[in-house]
Amino acid sequence: MEKGQLLYEGKAKRLYATTEENILFVEYKDSATAFNGEKKEEIAGKGVLNNSITTLIFDKLKSAGIDSHFVGKISDNEQLVKKVDIIPIELVVRNIAAGSLANRIGYEEGTPLSRPIVEFYYKNDDLGDPFITSEHIDVLDIATSEEVQALYDNGLKVNDVLRPFFQEIGVILVDFKLEFGRDANGQVLLADEISPDTCRLWDSETKQKLDKDVFRRNIGDLTEVYKIILARLGGLSK
Amino acid sequence: MEKGQLLYEGKAKRLYATTEENILFVEYKDSATAFNGEKKEEIAGKGVLNNSITTLIFDKLKSAGIDSHFVGKISDNEQLVKKVDIIPIELVVRNIAAGSLANRIGYEEGTPLSRPIVEFYYKNDDLGDPFITSEHIDVLDIATSEEVQALYDNGLKVNDVLRPFFQEIGVILVDFKLEFGRDANGQVLLADEISPDTCRLWDSETKQKLDKDVFRRNIGDLTEVYKIILARLGGLSK
Repeated sequence: MEKGQLLYEGKAKRLYATTEENILFVEYKDSATAFNGEKKEEIAGKGVLNNSITTLIFDKLKSAGIDSHFVGKISDNEQLVKKVDIIPIELVVRNIAAGSLANRIGYEEGTPLSRPIVEFYYKNDDLGDPFITSEHIDVLDIATSEEVQALYDNGLKVNDVLRPFFQEIGVILVDFKLEFGRDANGQVLLADEISPDTCRLWDSETKQKLDKDVFRRNIGDLTEVYKIILARLGGLSK
Repeated sequence: MEKGQLLYEGKAKRLYATTEENILFVEYKDSATAFNGEKKEEIAGKGVLNNSITTLIFDKLKSAGIDSHFVGKISDNEQLVKKVDIIPIELVVRNIAAGSLANRIGYEEGTPLSRPIVEFYYKNDDLGDPFITSEHIDVLDIATSEEVQALYDNGLKVNDVLRPFFQEIGVILVDFKLEFGRDANGQVLLADEISPDTCRLWDSETKQKLDKDVFRRNIGDLTEVYKIILARLGGLSK
C-alpha cells in the first residue's frame, strides 16, 4: 500500500490517500498542542508512541467487539485506517472529575463521579470546541438523532472495555475523548486515535498524571509518561 | 396577610414570611444586575414594572393550565407566592439565537432556530451559573430524573403558551429563563418571575430589544422598554 496525496494535516496527524479508495494512510506527528493550538511544541518520539498506543487500544476494542476505522499499524509512526467523514462532534466520557468538568460543577479534581458522564463538544476551532447538547447538534444539523445515540452508546461501551483494561495495568481511566466518522456506507465508525493525547490516565497508586496534562500544565516529560503507558500495555518490547 | 421576617434577599427581589406557613411575601426591588452581579444599578420603577408584568404572565399561564407559585399581586411592587424550595437549576428555552447561544454555536444573533432548544444551567453564583446537562444534574444530585423531565416538559409548555401570546402583541419571544421549586408536597412548581429581566423580547417589526439586554449592553432606557411591554400586555391602564 503506497502513500499517496496528502489529504489533510491536523494538529497531531497527517492523512494521505492510498491506492485503495476507502483506505487512508495516517502519519503520527511529533507535535504536541493544547488550548486549541495556542500551546505548541515538537516532541521527538511522540508520534511513534501514540501510533503504538492507539494500535494496542484499537486492537483491544476490536477483540471486545467494538469496531473502529483502524486497519493496521504499518511502521513506527504510520497506520492504515478506513476512510470516514469525521462527524464534527467530540464525545467525552468521564469517570472522575478533572479539567473543565471539575471547574464546571465545582468538584475538586480527582473526585469520583457517581456515574460516567457523557459530554458532546462541537469540533470547531473558530468557536473553541464549545460544549453542546444533542439539541444543539439537532439545530446545527451535524448529526442525526440516531447517530447521536450511536455515539453515546459507543462512548459508554468503550468506557466499559477500557476502564477495566487500564485498571489491570494500574492506571485509572479518568476521562477520554472519542471521534467518529461515517464510512462509505454511511455507518458510524469509531475513528481518530485513543492515546494519552486523548485520555486522562493516572497511576492508580500515586495518581501521577500519565497523559497530555503533563504538557498542558508543564508538570513532567511527555515522552517519559507516554512510555510508561506503552510499557504497561506491553508494547515496549515489540 | 402581613409581611413577616425577611427570609432571603436576592438580586431583584426580597422574600418575607407571612402569617401563613406556606405563603411568602415577595417584594420586587428596583435593582438591575447583570453578568453575575458585576454590573449593578438602581432603576426607579423597575420593581413595579416587573411585579405587574410577572403577574400578567403567571395569570396567562394559569388560564392555559400551567400552575405556578403565584398567588396574587397585593401592591404595586409586592405579590404573594406559594413557598417552594427553589431547585438550583435555571431552565432556558430558546427560539431564536441570541446571547450565549449565538456565541456557542456560531449563529448570528437573530437567527431563528429550527426547533426550540432547552438548556439547563446550574444556579451557583460561585461557579458563574455554568451550562450543564441532565447528567451533571444527576451527579450533582440536585434534582431527580423525574424532576428534570418535569422541568423540561414545563419549559416547552410555557413556550407553547407564551410565544403566541407575545406574538399577538407584536413581540418575539427570543428566549427565556425559568426557575422551579418543590412545594410542601414535593411537587415541582414553576416559580421566580417571568419578566423582561428573564426573557429576551424583541419588537416583531423593528427588532428593538424590549428586555434587560438594554441594560446589559447599555443600549437604551430600561424602564422605557419595560413600559412598552407592560402597555402591550394591557397592564398600564390598571
